[in-house]
Amino acid sequence: MEQDYVVGVDIGGQTTKIGIVDRKGTVICEPLIIRTDAHTDEHLYFDDLTKAINKIIADTQTSGKIKGVGIGAPNGNYYEGTIEHAPNLTWGGRKTIKVTEILSGKLGLPVTLTNDANAAAVGEMTYGAAIGMKNFIMITLGTGVGSGIVINGQVVYGHDGFAGELGHTTAVRYNGRQCNCGRVGCIEAYASAIGLAKTAREYLEANMDKDQFNQRSPLRDINAPLTSKDVYVAASQGDGLAKKVFEFTGMKLGESLADFVAFSAPQVIILFGGLTKAGDLIKKPTEHYMNENLLSIWKNKVAVIFSLLPESDAAILGASALAW
Amino acid sequence: MEQDYVVGVDIGGQTTKIGIVDRKGTVICEPLIIRTDAHTDEHLYFDDLTKAINKIIADTQTSGKIKGVGIGAPNGNYYEGTIEHAPNLTWGGRKTIKVTEILSGKLGLPVTLTNDANAAAVGEMTYGAAIGMKNFIMITLGTGVGSGIVINGQVVYGHDGFAGELGHTTAVRYNGRQCNCGRVGCIEAYASAIGLAKTAREYLEANMDKDQFNQRSPLRDINAPLTSKDVYVAASQGDGLAKKVFEFTGMKLGESLADFVAFSAPQVIILFGGLTKAGDLIKKPTEHYMNENLLSIWKNKVAVIFSLLPESDAAILGASALAW
Repeated sequence: MEQDYVVGVDIGGQTTKIGIVDRKGTVICEPLIIRTDAHTDEHLYFDDLTKAINKIIADTQTSGKIKGVGIGAPNGNYYEGTIEHAPNLTWGGRKTIKVTEILSGKLGLPVTLTNDANAAAVGEMTYGAAIGMKNFIMITLGTGVGSGIVINGQVVYGHDGFAGELGHTTAVRYNGRQCNCGRVGCIEAYASAIGLAKTAREYLEANMDKDQFNQRSPLRDINAPLTSKDVYVAASQGDGLAKKVFEFTGMKLGESLADFVAFSAPQVIILFGGLTKAGDLIKKPTEHYMNENLLSIWKNKVAVIFSLLPESDAAILGASALAW
Repeated sequence: MEQDYVVGVDIGGQTTKIGIVDRKGTVICEPLIIRTDAHTDEHLYFDDLTKAINKIIADTQTSGKIKGVGIGAPNGNYYEGTIEHAPNLTWGGRKTIKVTEILSGKLGLPVTLTNDANAAAVGEMTYGAAIGMKNFIMITLGTGVGSGIVINGQVVYGHDGFAGELGHTTAVRYNGRQCNCGRVGCIEAYASAIGLAKTAREYLEANMDKDQFNQRSPLRDINAPLTSKDVYVAASQGDGLAKKVFEFTGMKLGESLADFVAFSAPQVIILFGGLTKAGDLIKKPTEHYMNENLLSIWKNKVAVIFSLLPESDAAILGASALAW
C-alpha cells in the first residue's frame, strides 16, 4: 500500500511551523518555519504560508499523497474553520478570518483547524499516550494553561466551537491573582510557567526562604526576571523555597483537576508542555491534591500522566492529526 | 400508525413512581407509586416493582406496545445498568445491584438506567426546553444539586458512567461549608434547598435584617426549622433579608455556571427542581453573576432558562425518555 501523509501547521504568535507527518506520527523532514508576524495583512500571510506548504510538499516528494492539512491556531474555531479575534496575531486581532476557506482554495486540499490545546488532544489520541482512549482531558502547561477535552472519543467543541477553556476556570474565587484574560483567580494565573515564576517571586518577597527553610534561596542571586526554569533548577538542587513553589503550583492544579473530573469523569488526565519537564516536582503534588479533593468514587482511580508526544514536534503532530 | 409507549420509573429513597408515556411526553395515566423503603433485600423490591410495572401496563392496555423501560435512580450507572453503593436506598448501600439485568429478565423488555439528573436532561431533550439542542447543561436544584451534561446531542457519562457531578465542584475553596459528600465548599452546600435555608439561618444569626435592612425579618417568627419555601414566601413579600438570601444563592450558582461554560460551551443552561419555583428571585442573580464571571467570548451569549417539563411528572418523563 502506498504511504499517505498529512501536513501539520502550528500557527504561533511569532512563527508558524509546518511539517509532513506519516500515519505513525513521524515528522518525516525538518519542519519549515515562516514568520507569523511579518505581515499585518492576513492575505499576504496566507500567500507566504501557501508557498511554504507547497515547497515542503515538493521537497518531500509527497505531492498526490497528502490527505489534508491540519492547523492548530490561537482562537481557532473548529466548526467555522476561522481564527476569531486573536490578539496575539499581528494580522488577526478584532476580526474573523476564514482560514480553512482561504487555504483550501489556494492548496486544493481539505483543511481543518482548531486551537492548539484541542490539536494536542487529537495528537495524543492519534499518536501518543491516549491511543484507544475515549475519555480524557489534556492540560497544556505553557506560558498559559490550555485544555483539550475528549468525551466518547470526540474533542469537545461545544455550541460555538470554543469549548475547553479550563485555564480560565476559577482556582481562587476571592482575592485571586489577576489573569491576562481580565478576570481574577483563573488557574492559568497559578499553574502556567508565568504563574509559577510569580509564586516564586512572592515567596522571595515574603522571605519564606529564611523564615521557613532557614536558608537563603539561590533564586535571590538571579538578576534577570525569574523564569520557571530557574525555579526548576533550584528545586532540583534541593532549594526548599523552590520545591515549595512546585508544591503550591501542583496543589492549585490538583484542586482544579478534581473539579474537571466531576464534570467528565475522564480515564486519565494528560499533562503537556514546558512545566512537565519538572517531572515529579509538578506531578506528585498535582496527583496528591487532586485525589485529596475528589469525590470518593474517583479517589485514586484517575491517573495523571505526561504526554508521550516528543515536545519539539508536538504542536505539528497535534495539528496534523486533525487532517486524518 | 399504531401508538407506542415507554415506561418511566423514578426510584427515590422513599417511593418509586411508575408511569406510561407516549411519544409526545404525556403521562397517559395516573402514576403508580410503590414504597422503595419497604424492603432491605433488593430481590423483594424488584419483585414488587415488576408486579407494579406489569399492573400499569395491563391497566392502560399497552401490552405489546411498550418499547422499553427507562429508570432514573440515585448512583445509577448507565454503562453497567447498575445502582452502585446508594446510601439512600434501604436495599442499595455498599453493593452493586444489576438493575437492568434483573428487570429485563423479569419483564422481557429492554431496560435502560441512569441517575436522576441525567434522566432529566434526556427528558428535556426529548419532550422539553432542549428539543433540537445538541449542547446544554441541566442543573437540578432540589435537596441537593445535580447535573446532566449534553454534548453533541449525547449525555456525558464519562469513563466510568458517573460523569456530571457538578453539584460537587467547588464553589468556595477555603473555609467553605461542609457538604454531605464529606468535602467542603461544594456548590451543593450553597445552591440546594438545604443550602439556601442555611444561608437564611446564618443571616438571621448575624442579625443582618436589623443591621442591614433596618427591619425585623418575618423569618424570625417561624418556629419550625426554616425551609427554602419559607424564604421564598418572605422574599416574595418584600423581606430584604430573604431577598438577599436569593441574591447570594444566585451569586454562588452563577459563579459556578461560568466555570461550567468554560468546560463545554453550552447553548443554554437549564435550571430544574424546587428552587426554580422562586422564578426571577433565583434566575436574575444567577444570570447576572454568571455573565459577570464569564470569559468575554461568552458574555451574554449563554441563556439561563427554566425546564419546560411539568414538575409533577418530570422525573417519570426523564426516566421514560431513556427508553426510546
